[in-house]
Amino acid sequence: MHEIIYEADTRAGKLFDVVLLIAILASVLLVMLESVESIDSKYHYYLNISEWVITLLFTIEYILRVIAINKPTKYIFSFYGIIDLLSTLPKYLAIIFTGTHSLIALRLLRLLRIFRILKLTRYIGASNNLMVALKASKAKISVFLFFVVIVCTILGTVMYMIEGAENGFTSIPRSVYWAIVTLTTVGFGDIAPQTPIGQFIASIIMILGYGIIAIPTGIVSTQIAKMENIDTNTQACPNCGIEKHKDGAEFCYNCGNKLN
Amino acid sequence: MHEIIYEADTRAGKLFDVVLLIAILASVLLVMLESVESIDSKYHYYLNISEWVITLLFTIEYILRVIAINKPTKYIFSFYGIIDLLSTLPKYLAIIFTGTHSLIALRLLRLLRIFRILKLTRYIGASNNLMVALKASKAKISVFLFFVVIVCTILGTVMYMIEGAENGFTSIPRSVYWAIVTLTTVGFGDIAPQTPIGQFIASIIMILGYGIIAIPTGIVSTQIAKMENIDTNTQACPNCGIEKHKDGAEFCYNCGNKLN
Amino acid sequence: MHEIIYEADTRAGKLFDVVLLIAILASVLLVMLESVESIDSKYHYYLNISEWVITLLFTIEYILRVIAINKPTKYIFSFYGIIDLLSTLPKYLAIIFTGTHSLIALRLLRLLRIFRILKLTRYIGASNNLMVALKASKAKISVFLFFVVIVCTILGTVMYMIEGAENGFTSIPRSVYWAIVTLTTVGFGDIAPQTPIGQFIASIIMILGYGIIAIPTGIVSTQIAKMENIDTNTQACPNCGIEKHKDGAEFCYNCGNKLN
Amino acid sequence: MHEIIYEADTRAGKLFDVVLLIAILASVLLVMLESVESIDSKYHYYLNISEWVITLLFTIEYILRVIAINKPTKYIFSFYGIIDLLSTLPKYLAIIFTGTHSLIALRLLRLLRIFRILKLTRYIGASNNLMVALKASKAKISVFLFFVVIVCTILGTVMYMIEGAENGFTSIPRSVYWAIVTLTTVGFGDIAPQTPIGQFIASIIMILGYGIIAIPTGIVSTQIAKMENIDTNTQACPNCGIEKHKDGAEFCYNCGNKLN
Repeated sequence: MHEIIYEADTRAGKLFDVVLLIAILASVLLVMLESVESIDSKYHYYLNISEWVITLLFTIEYILRVIAINKPTKYIFSFYGIIDLLSTLPKYLAIIFTGTHSLIALRLLRLLRIFRILKLTRYIGASNNLMVALKASKAKISVFLFFVVIVCTILGTVMYMIEGAENGFTSIPRSVYWAIVTLTTVGFGDIAPQTPIGQFIASIIMILGYGIIAIPTGIVSTQIAKMENIDTNTQACPNCGIEKHKDGAEFCYNCGNKLN
Repeated sequence: MHEIIYEADTRAGKLFDVVLLIAILASVLLVMLESVESIDSKYHYYLNISEWVITLLFTIEYILRVIAINKPTKYIFSFYGIIDLLSTLPKYLAIIFTGTHSLIALRLLRLLRIFRILKLTRYIGASNNLMVALKASKAKISVFLFFVVIVCTILGTVMYMIEGAENGFTSIPRSVYWAIVTLTTVGFGDIAPQTPIGQFIASIIMILGYGIIAIPTGIVSTQIAKMENIDTNTQACPNCGIEKHKDGAEFCYNCGNKLN
Repeated sequence: MHEIIYEADTRAGKLFDVVLLIAILASVLLVMLESVESIDSKYHYYLNISEWVITLLFTIEYILRVIAINKPTKYIFSFYGIIDLLSTLPKYLAIIFTGTHSLIALRLLRLLRIFRILKLTRYIGASNNLMVALKASKAKISVFLFFVVIVCTILGTVMYMIEGAENGFTSIPRSVYWAIVTLTTVGFGDIAPQTPIGQFIASIIMILGYGIIAIPTGIVSTQIAKMENIDTNTQACPNCGIEKHKDGAEFCYNCGNKLN
Repeated sequence: MHEIIYEADTRAGKLFDVVLLIAILASVLLVMLESVESIDSKYHYYLNISEWVITLLFTIEYILRVIAINKPTKYIFSFYGIIDLLSTLPKYLAIIFTGTHSLIALRLLRLLRIFRILKLTRYIGASNNLMVALKASKAKISVFLFFVVIVCTILGTVMYMIEGAENGFTSIPRSVYWAIVTLTTVGFGDIAPQTPIGQFIASIIMILGYGIIAIPTGIVSTQIAKMENIDTNTQACPNCGIEKHKDGAEFCYNCGNKLN
């Protein structure tokens, strides 16, 4: 049973995974549909039943996972164990707290189930090295984001001084928010500079944001290029078996043996 | 005749292609102009005639293509064969269904002809290796887009909880839509956070979106760089066997031997 | 005199260039200020005088350029020659056409002087190889832009069918315009999808636009990397003098001579 | 004492730095909160006291820095010395100028303290080579930004001619501002083209902006890649003298000799 639930090598294991995948997507879809008032008022009965079916499915899955593993506590307190529990409970809690005054709290609980979608990240797993590239450039990207936040804080304050409350820049936090909206080239337009000087500074922020987007891109590009090892081949040394030799290398960089 | 229609080597073949190109662009322009009410009401007569001319042209082309090929069924059920048929039929169907109640269906049929523009992709063909680079990084880009969708689903739900229906976040799907608008730095501004906490989370989404745009760029850059195999050829030195010579090199950079 | 006007080697030549630079920027600023009604109504007199001063300066420059060169016709019909003439004439034409009914035409003529700013591009000149990199990737970028236009045409038409005139998608050209606004992540928000299906398709367009921005970046990055010759050094061959050897090369790739 | 304040090697020095960091962030937060009217009117008393505490802290820090260094004038007129002084003074000046008519000037002085956040850049320091990469590509990026400004000036003027004041393009500076908003893909939407021709030109600007964002990215990517010198070190083989060995290589890839 451990093999079916935790591995995907056997036929039953693969089937289990596919069913789980569909159940997760269905549960996320259900939470979404429920939040659309026009749909919820019409099909509330069917949505409710579907939710109970999926909740029962997840309950069985959770129990099986606890039983099938040698150290249940390790699973229970793992990242996915907590998500599994948190995303199954809300429906049961809804029976206990049925008073009309607890409706809002209940709604929030229901939304917790959206985190089930995080379980899907299991299927990305180690198959990609994108995360490795991101982790390797974490320090540089942090410095960059730190720089962006400082720039936005100062520019937001400057805009607050220039434009003032009458043009929508009612406070510094709001102006900093606007500076972030502008520097990242999002540009909602709910707040926009009205004075000529404000528009001039906004232009500088925009051109700045347009230019410095090159920095994270450059960092990640280089990192990925590094990891892909553009300059190496896949040949293995006949003596020590090491790979990733420089293109055109005649001797193994590890043991000095001649490469054929 | 096969050579004229399917190949572009002969003079007649090139002429056929140029005429076809102009006809496709003209037909797309006609559909567009018809949709502009002020133009349609004025020049309806001329637009109608022009359309019939182009429809007849495409009909002749379709018939010729079916006749000129050895296996007509292969063409008819090919991608471009279906597009050719679908983009020619609507005008004929418009004669049969002339009742006023079928006006809307007719309009939709007319729009089908816009897909003729897809035939233009024929002329991009194998001449570029952009598609190859994209296909090679398909897996990584899929993982990235999957990650973006998960992030937007969770952040959209969080914003729905914080901002609520009174600030335009009326349902989870709408909030997820907003999260996508924000993360991709599009920023329509039809929905915008109003509460300080909402604006704070929006700031995080924007900076996140500003940062992770680096990932697809890094993937594609590396892939293109790999395929372009910067500045070297695959020739091996006849003496020492070393590869990756500079393009145009006449002597081996490793042993000085003359390259053929 | 030819040396002063056309070259920047001598002291007088440099001074001439600096004065010209300031005059161009001043003239552009004047046109801009004139277009701001509140400033123009107040300082019309001073703006007018300043314009005459600059127009006279440019007139003298134009005459000197024609005199100082051996083949005046070559200069007159060159790109910069035409710009020089077009940006000097308007003020003189303004004396001839003084009727109140020609005010609008006059305004447009005045704006022509903004093109003087193009003369500044002279100073970028051959000093950068950005243009070379762009020209080298012209074919690929054209294919990419062609692809973007096709995608926007089809998606715009689809949105026109789904959203319709009641949600601002009044015609196909307008819908295609919206698709371009969205795909390029500009997102004005003057037109925005209102139906759930429309918002779903908009989400796809946005994620698509967010993803395919990687393509031009990848193309240009690779091109610049190629031109910068990451893998080569600046050593010159002692025999034939050729440069740009592969890092670590022991023999000249051009003449086969041993590199020291 | 010099060691504690200016260095971070000793325990006391590290503690000093951490306290300073927290004080700076707290002072920035205070200025922000004060600008939010609803918070300021409620908690004005507590905000005022907190500010005095932090101002005193910064005063002590400033005096210590002046005392602890050998050449006080060097510190006082250094970049951070001026920031330290400017961000401490305002609160004291507020006692002197207490008349109601000086309230606005006072507010601006208070905002000066936000520049304290610049002191945080001290902690980025030389630990990253991002700045080096940016400086190395300064010339190219300047040319690029200069090009962007020229393009926006011309396109803004063209849009001013086409759309005119009735569609929000009231003056050339405002139209240039709009062109920058559009080219950088920010897209506030406060000004948006209404005429078909205006929307057509806007489409060209947007596609242009979408395309040329590749240029700074390409420049910075290449620069970072150059500096990272992908995966190789600068050690030379003691036998054959070849360089660019893989990081961690023990034998020369060219002659098989042991690397020391």
